[in-house]
Amino acid sequence: MDTKKIQKVLTSVRSGKMDVKDALDTLKHLPYEDIGIAKVDHHRELRHGIPEVIFAEGKDLGDIRIIADSMLKKTRKLLITKASKEVFNCVGEVCKHHKIKVKFFEKSGIIMAGAPVKKKGSVAVLCAGTSDMPVAEEAHVTASFLGSRVESVNDVGVAGLHRLMEARKILSDANVLIVAAGMEGALPSVIGGMTDKPIIAVPTSVGYGTSLGGLTALFAMLNSCVPGIAVMNIDNGFGAGVLAHKINMLVVNR
Amino acid sequence: MDTKKIQKVLTSVRSGKMDVKDALDTLKHLPYEDIGIAKVDHHRELRHGIPEVIFAEGKDLGDIRIIADSMLKKTRKLLITKASKEVFNCVGEVCKHHKIKVKFFEKSGIIMAGAPVKKKGSVAVLCAGTSDMPVAEEAHVTASFLGSRVESVNDVGVAGLHRLMEARKILSDANVLIVAAGMEGALPSVIGGMTDKPIIAVPTSVGYGTSLGGLTALFAMLNSCVPGIAVMNIDNGFGAGVLAHKINMLVVNR
Amino acid sequence: MDTKKIQKVLTSVRSGKMDVKDALDTLKHLPYEDIGIAKVDHHRELRHGIPEVIFAEGKDLGDIRIIADSMLKKTRKLLITKASKEVFNCVGEVCKHHKIKVKFFEKSGIIMAGAPVKKKGSVAVLCAGTSDMPVAEEAHVTASFLGSRVESVNDVGVAGLHRLMEARKILSDANVLIVAAGMEGALPSVIGGMTDKPIIAVPTSVGYGTSLGGLTALFAMLNSCVPGIAVMNIDNGFGAGVLAHKINMLVVNR
Amino acid sequence: MDTKKIQKVLTSVRSGKMDVKDALDTLKHLPYEDIGIAKVDHHRELRHGIPEVIFAEGKDLGDIRIIADSMLKKTRKLLITKASKEVFNCVGEVCKHHKIKVKFFEKSGIIMAGAPVKKKGSVAVLCAGTSDMPVAEEAHVTASFLGSRVESVNDVGVAGLHRLMEARKILSDANVLIVAAGMEGALPSVIGGMTDKPIIAVPTSVGYGTSLGGLTALFAMLNSCVPGIAVMNIDNGFGAGVLAHKINMLVVNR
Amino acid sequence: MDTKKIQKVLTSVRSGKMDVKDALDTLKHLPYEDIGIAKVDHHRELRHGIPEVIFAEGKDLGDIRIIADSMLKKTRKLLITKASKEVFNCVGEVCKHHKIKVKFFEKSGIIMAGAPVKKKGSVAVLCAGTSDMPVAEEAHVTASFLGSRVESVNDVGVAGLHRLMEARKILSDANVLIVAAGMEGALPSVIGGMTDKPIIAVPTSVGYGTSLGGLTALFAMLNSCVPGIAVMNIDNGFGAGVLAHKINMLVVNR
Amino acid sequence: MDTKKIQKVLTSVRSGKMDVKDALDTLKHLPYEDIGIAKVDHHRELRHGIPEVIFAEGKDLGDIRIIADSMLKKTRKLLITKASKEVFNCVGEVCKHHKIKVKFFEKSGIIMAGAPVKKKGSVAVLCAGTSDMPVAEEAHVTASFLGSRVESVNDVGVAGLHRLMEARKILSDANVLIVAAGMEGALPSVIGGMTDKPIIAVPTSVGYGTSLGGLTALFAMLNSCVPGIAVMNIDNGFGAGVLAHKINMLVVNR
Amino acid sequence: MDTKKIQKVLTSVRSGKMDVKDALDTLKHLPYEDIGIAKVDHHRELRHGIPEVIFAEGKDLGDIRIIADSMLKKTRKLLITKASKEVFNCVGEVCKHHKIKVKFFEKSGIIMAGAPVKKKGSVAVLCAGTSDMPVAEEAHVTASFLGSRVESVNDVGVAGLHRLMEARKILSDANVLIVAAGMEGALPSVIGGMTDKPIIAVPTSVGYGTSLGGLTALFAMLNSCVPGIAVMNIDNGFGAGVLAHKINMLVVNR
Amino acid sequence: MDTKKIQKVLTSVRSGKMDVKDALDTLKHLPYEDIGIAKVDHHRELRHGIPEVIFAEGKDLGDIRIIADSMLKKTRKLLITKASKEVFNCVGEVCKHHKIKVKFFEKSGIIMAGAPVKKKGSVAVLCAGTSDMPVAEEAHVTASFLGSRVESVNDVGVAGLHRLMEARKILSDANVLIVAAGMEGALPSVIGGMTDKPIIAVPTSVGYGTSLGGLTALFAMLNSCVPGIAVMNIDNGFGAGVLAHKINMLVVNR
Repeated sequence: MDTKKIQKVLTSVRSGKMDVKDALDTLKHLPYEDIGIAKVDHHRELRHGIPEVIFAEGKDLGDIRIIADSMLKKTRKLLITKASKEVFNCVGEVCKHHKIKVKFFEKSGIIMAGAPVKKKGSVAVLCAGTSDMPVAEEAHVTASFLGSRVESVNDVGVAGLHRLMEARKILSDANVLIVAAGMEGALPSVIGGMTDKPIIAVPTSVGYGTSLGGLTALFAMLNSCVPGIAVMNIDNGFGAGVLAHKINMLVVNR
Repeated sequence: MDTKKIQKVLTSVRSGKMDVKDALDTLKHLPYEDIGIAKVDHHRELRHGIPEVIFAEGKDLGDIRIIADSMLKKTRKLLITKASKEVFNCVGEVCKHHKIKVKFFEKSGIIMAGAPVKKKGSVAVLCAGTSDMPVAEEAHVTASFLGSRVESVNDVGVAGLHRLMEARKILSDANVLIVAAGMEGALPSVIGGMTDKPIIAVPTSVGYGTSLGGLTALFAMLNSCVPGIAVMNIDNGFGAGVLAHKINMLVVNR
Repeated sequence: MDTKKIQKVLTSVRSGKMDVKDALDTLKHLPYEDIGIAKVDHHRELRHGIPEVIFAEGKDLGDIRIIADSMLKKTRKLLITKASKEVFNCVGEVCKHHKIKVKFFEKSGIIMAGAPVKKKGSVAVLCAGTSDMPVAEEAHVTASFLGSRVESVNDVGVAGLHRLMEARKILSDANVLIVAAGMEGALPSVIGGMTDKPIIAVPTSVGYGTSLGGLTALFAMLNSCVPGIAVMNIDNGFGAGVLAHKINMLVVNR
Repeated sequence: MDTKKIQKVLTSVRSGKMDVKDALDTLKHLPYEDIGIAKVDHHRELRHGIPEVIFAEGKDLGDIRIIADSMLKKTRKLLITKASKEVFNCVGEVCKHHKIKVKFFEKSGIIMAGAPVKKKGSVAVLCAGTSDMPVAEEAHVTASFLGSRVESVNDVGVAGLHRLMEARKILSDANVLIVAAGMEGALPSVIGGMTDKPIIAVPTSVGYGTSLGGLTALFAMLNSCVPGIAVMNIDNGFGAGVLAHKINMLVVNR
Repeated sequence: MDTKKIQKVLTSVRSGKMDVKDALDTLKHLPYEDIGIAKVDHHRELRHGIPEVIFAEGKDLGDIRIIADSMLKKTRKLLITKASKEVFNCVGEVCKHHKIKVKFFEKSGIIMAGAPVKKKGSVAVLCAGTSDMPVAEEAHVTASFLGSRVESVNDVGVAGLHRLMEARKILSDANVLIVAAGMEGALPSVIGGMTDKPIIAVPTSVGYGTSLGGLTALFAMLNSCVPGIAVMNIDNGFGAGVLAHKINMLVVNR
Repeated sequence: MDTKKIQKVLTSVRSGKMDVKDALDTLKHLPYEDIGIAKVDHHRELRHGIPEVIFAEGKDLGDIRIIADSMLKKTRKLLITKASKEVFNCVGEVCKHHKIKVKFFEKSGIIMAGAPVKKKGSVAVLCAGTSDMPVAEEAHVTASFLGSRVESVNDVGVAGLHRLMEARKILSDANVLIVAAGMEGALPSVIGGMTDKPIIAVPTSVGYGTSLGGLTALFAMLNSCVPGIAVMNIDNGFGAGVLAHKINMLVVNR
Repeated sequence: MDTKKIQKVLTSVRSGKMDVKDALDTLKHLPYEDIGIAKVDHHRELRHGIPEVIFAEGKDLGDIRIIADSMLKKTRKLLITKASKEVFNCVGEVCKHHKIKVKFFEKSGIIMAGAPVKKKGSVAVLCAGTSDMPVAEEAHVTASFLGSRVESVNDVGVAGLHRLMEARKILSDANVLIVAAGMEGALPSVIGGMTDKPIIAVPTSVGYGTSLGGLTALFAMLNSCVPGIAVMNIDNGFGAGVLAHKINMLVVNR
Repeated sequence: MDTKKIQKVLTSVRSGKMDVKDALDTLKHLPYEDIGIAKVDHHRELRHGIPEVIFAEGKDLGDIRIIADSMLKKTRKLLITKASKEVFNCVGEVCKHHKIKVKFFEKSGIIMAGAPVKKKGSVAVLCAGTSDMPVAEEAHVTASFLGSRVESVNDVGVAGLHRLMEARKILSDANVLIVAAGMEGALPSVIGGMTDKPIIAVPTSVGYGTSLGGLTALFAMLNSCVPGIAVMNIDNGFGAGVLAHKINMLVVNR
């Protein structure tokens, strides 16, 4: 640990074993990141309660088990995205071993353990169709895990705008809105015309043909005639949850 | 004219100058399209009044002058799309020579001469923003030139939906709607949720960045969650006008 | 139901319990969509008999079962697109429970129950090759389910144009044509040169290499030198069926 | 004004001139948007001071002059994006006529008139290279025009990270950061590793070859390994300014 | 058969049962393609021995069995491309039933039955690497099935140009060369610099990453600095075989 | 010149100055290309009369003048493609200086000097619309310059198929057909259904929107349901002319 | 073998059986590549120890077994990339037969047998995340197999830069760095700002949505604001290993 | 300057004014980059003589003048890429003012001033056609400016490989090769088969149609069957020059 090295240098200077010039040289050549970055990481965790999150896709079970175990030891909480049933079975055992409750959200493949009981502020998650629900769920669970209070309103595409109206109170209470939509991705524009809340749009890969795996929804959202919509990567409910939580906390923490 | 040739063969058979086998051979080797296609073309013109239309882009003035002159001689009417001011000046002279009134629509670069005075049925043309007007104008002029009554409602994007409401009567009177929109191309979906009329969507190249010259609007329209929207090529107001006219005439002609 | 709320306000005003100013305020803050949108939806169903349609791809069996059950209860009819054998087995049971006959079209994966017996007008569906038949079938079943009389002519690509000729009567009787084609997507242009009926072109994902999963056929159709062809998303037989039905009904309903 | 119409109906009900059933029918058929949307628009303006903004590209001078004149009359302020020198000359006259000071930011082509004197909260705008400055300027002017206090730090790419450090106070004071970068678009990821503030990333079209007009920077930002970065369309400094202002106001308004 | 109809008309004219005018009308309305296209098809088969070819991908076994059976009945030969082992098993039975020998080329998935014993002229097929062999094989079998003598030289990429040299005699004897290559697709350019024979380049989908499924090889071949290279669709060995055979026959048939 | 070096070695061997082993070593290390490639180039010119051709785009006038001058000196003939008027003026002077007649084809920007008087065989060039004529002209002039007899039939798209019929004799006399078409690029497929001649398809950049600068026509041609069509790069009339000439010569030279 | 032919010619010249002119002609027409290319190949192997490498993807087991066997016979070493477990089992037997130790690196699917014991110089391989490790492993094994000493530092993305610092000595000892990264591909730029060593960047296909299978990382690396980064194809750890080894050897061999 | 701050802390510790714990805290919170990054930058300049380079495209003259002036003051040398004639005129004056000779390479638009007289090592630059020369020139001038000895061989495409042979000595003397090519980008593969030197491939935007502005050449180079080719962004001669210089220096500096 570098703090020790610096301390040692300072003690040597204090005791006169090392003169100022040599100490200066030594300090200049210490790998600065050991001081800086590590500290920042630490601060971040203290302030935000955002532990590292595991992206499970393409990792093998063994690696995931090791990382999960180490994270549970350090922080007693855990968020894993894009996880399969197999990953859950494996991580479930690790959690059991640590005596920490764990939950698997099958639609989105997200695993959550040790989330805070008390939620703050308010985030609303909307999705256009039932096929977009996995992405909305990922956003919901993420923001909730990080400590935000979250409410979801599903299936509010063109054919179900009245359901959105029924949820009007939720919307007006929220500090920030997440809107997940595939196909032509028009929902954020439509909602953007009805509210002045910051909107985080998440294109989903729902659709076929020229939906191009979500690129069309993505590009449509980036080109919304409603200015100032924040856009995420395709199917990135996790990122939307993080950003919504950050904005929500701006309000909560003031 | 091939009819004459066939007639001659038949007369020869009748008179005994040619036997059946030779006549059969002769007929088999006549270029069939002279019979078929030409006839169809002729019928089309009689029934529809759709003369050939000149696409000016990339043609040189000389060629356009010759084609325009020949068309005016035959049909005394003319439609030229994607024309520049120079094309208009050149064609204007030709029209003057034929003593036919001609009009140039500068936004869309469309030149019209000799359109029918009496319009039938009803086509409505809507556009999302003022930048989409050239395309809407091209659609309007085309359908009008072909003989449809057309009404246009401009600038009815998210920020101006109330103007659409004011034009509600026009919409409910129309047999078919043309909707031109660029950027995220969401307008056809929104209007599609409010009407049961056939909708012809025209993506425009309005926008920048990921509007990709209109591809995003095009793909969004093709992926509309409102089923059954007819989509045109980017900026193809002309095609939308033709299709709207054809559908409109289905109603008018019954 | 909001009608009741408005009625209550009006009755209160009538009876003098509420003054005009308060009533005005109350009415202004009622969620307008409860009035507007719901009404429109209701009208649509009465006029058209177009019940909501389920897009099965990416939905789980449980959700589909619930939606299907609820729809059969309300409308005693059902259309499900892009369905697998499993979906059919599941929905079949639900139909059995409701004592409604159901049919599964395996090529296109479309499930139909409770379609009207009497068909009206005329829609023709043409496809270029046998590989395009699933898309053509989806279009056929959709338009038929909605109430249009539909005739199909299969495998009329360049190698089989004479079959198209044999079906000439069907074509000339139709109010609107659907043309499904993959690979270079040239069939709509060729047919467009032979008829003045509105043409709905559906690109299919048939082909390999630079067919780009149907994008090439799509772009070719959007660029047809025959103006006014309505283009659908790749493999979207369903959308083509809906649009054809709408245009067909324009003729029938006059 | 529809309020008047409703008032009239209510008065008629009150006075007994109209019975409840007729009043209900009348109210149901009033174009709801006249109530709803207009009101929302009005609210938005009162609360936010975000007047409509003119996107100049592709509009002709005449149209811009008319819109600008009407906006200055109503709100005495004006923001025009992607404007040329010619647009400024034209709008300048209109402003002079209204006796409102106007300023043209040549790099970004943004015209601003009548912005609020008092700025609130804090937004920081960073850009990677001098070529990204037009986009950063657009973001700066927009957020500033809307009422946010804005500080800009230019040219802080990999070669100039030390300048970022010098501006550390600005960053830690800001409620939200805007980061504009072209080429490989890595700056938001790097800054994202150093702060917990919400980051709005704006890809710019700076670069050549595989920068693909900004698509590469856009996609890189959407794929940042730092989760929760809000991404805008290419060169869309305006949108970034609007979103930053909205988030900033969340903090200010509590 | 339409020839009979025409003959009947002519006979009636001859015998005086039908006058010339009626005969003319009758002839004009005969579906012309019955005469023209059918004849062309017939001629083609007589001259070239190119029976229809079945593209198996995406067709179901039942359909393939029916078509194969009908083709074997008519022509006693058969070519099926992109066929699986299952298709072969199914078609094998049909061939057995017709007592026609059939062969399955597993690498390319091509099934051939009833090819001519005597081959003419000379076609050379070259491929860059062993992974390109399926495409080369498809080209080889196709041209051979159509009646061309074919010689193949495999694995002559940059690392094996000396093998090409060993095959120099084959090359100089060939009337036309087919060159299949994936990855960067440079082989046609290199061979083009060494010969004056017509070259047919077939890009293959061999490679990964930016080989883009063969698009890179395709585009490279289309941009060859050696002018006049004929390019086929990706993996389209069949098309290359057909074109090579046509060119080869030009030489043979003179 | 390496021939001299080899001669020297051989002479030394003959005279006994050098033994066989040393001579063998020396010969093995001679740069082989000096022998091989140069010889091939020479042979090519003798056999084919295909001098190097200058691609003018992006070269500066000075360089073109030098190359043209050197080529005229050596071969007294010249072909320059994609040339501007300025290039022609410059090259014209050079030709004048060499007393060689030169012609500039303005539509295609091709400059030809010193072509053979006697043309052989037969190549037919067809184009879909008048806008495709520059590409057709480039193909025509190229094949003609190389020594092929060429006939062109212009403007034979869907709207003018009867003109194609009128030119039937030209087609049936040709050894090979070049077909240039933009937009949806369907013409080669249509003609391919009517002939058994080798077809060289040239996509043109004519069109807008999803014509994607000719990519759509290119991909459509590569996906033609008529097998064996040779495809060229977009607007590459030159390449088509070269390939057509090569195939034509195969017939002529036998 | 051509050496024999040349020898024979030379002997004939020596003995006077053949005169110089005839010998010259004979030599000129010998296929030069038999001399040249083969020799070059031989030299390459002697100098570099780079035997041919087998790319297993898309090859069948039988072919791989034959090639592996032949290579082991000739060189007693072997490198196979993109190999499956099945390939390893098959090749394992072959190695056993030849009594050569073989190792399978499962993550990257690389098989190595007979690598040199003594490694030279120094190559460092860095990867951004654990998901990028397969590509890093392929690079490591390749360079190591070719004879370079290699050190790897894994998981040094933005979240783990301090680990990079810990490995600072490795970096400063290396002659060349390989950096593998997916998603936004920013790591090479960041490292490029910290070192003056040549950097070889390998984009990986890690990520989803707009990572576009690695294209985004690739394009980002090609657009790095740090000039002079060498970029490889997506997931091409093998190529990176070869280039790193070549550069490393430049230093070692001097 | 931070060194002073650290010195002050150390002096305070020495003198006992500050205890070790406080000093440790102070040091930890010093902005580390002031030490680290700045130092690295300084070292880089001392070691390499690589001053910052100005990318002129999209910068305005005023900014360039200021930067150029500041750089000349500090380092008395200057490299500006992608510069126009106007930029040169402006920078020329600045150089004159500083009495430093400056040269403008018009083809590539590169401005060089104050390059070292003595060049070291050896870099060879090859280009495929005369149209690729601007990119080759940029690479040449860059590597030369940085201190490498550079030799260029132009126009060595397929049609001119013999010129490459004439330059064989240059190639074998070079430590590293730069190969610039557009169109199909095959030259690096061909040269890669003939040498074991590290190859840096630069795709150029030369070509039309499917050359896609250089993407095809880029992708071809990334897919070369010759492993280990370093690829640059399209037209990025500058980057190639930097990398070549770095590799060249590895050899020179040992």
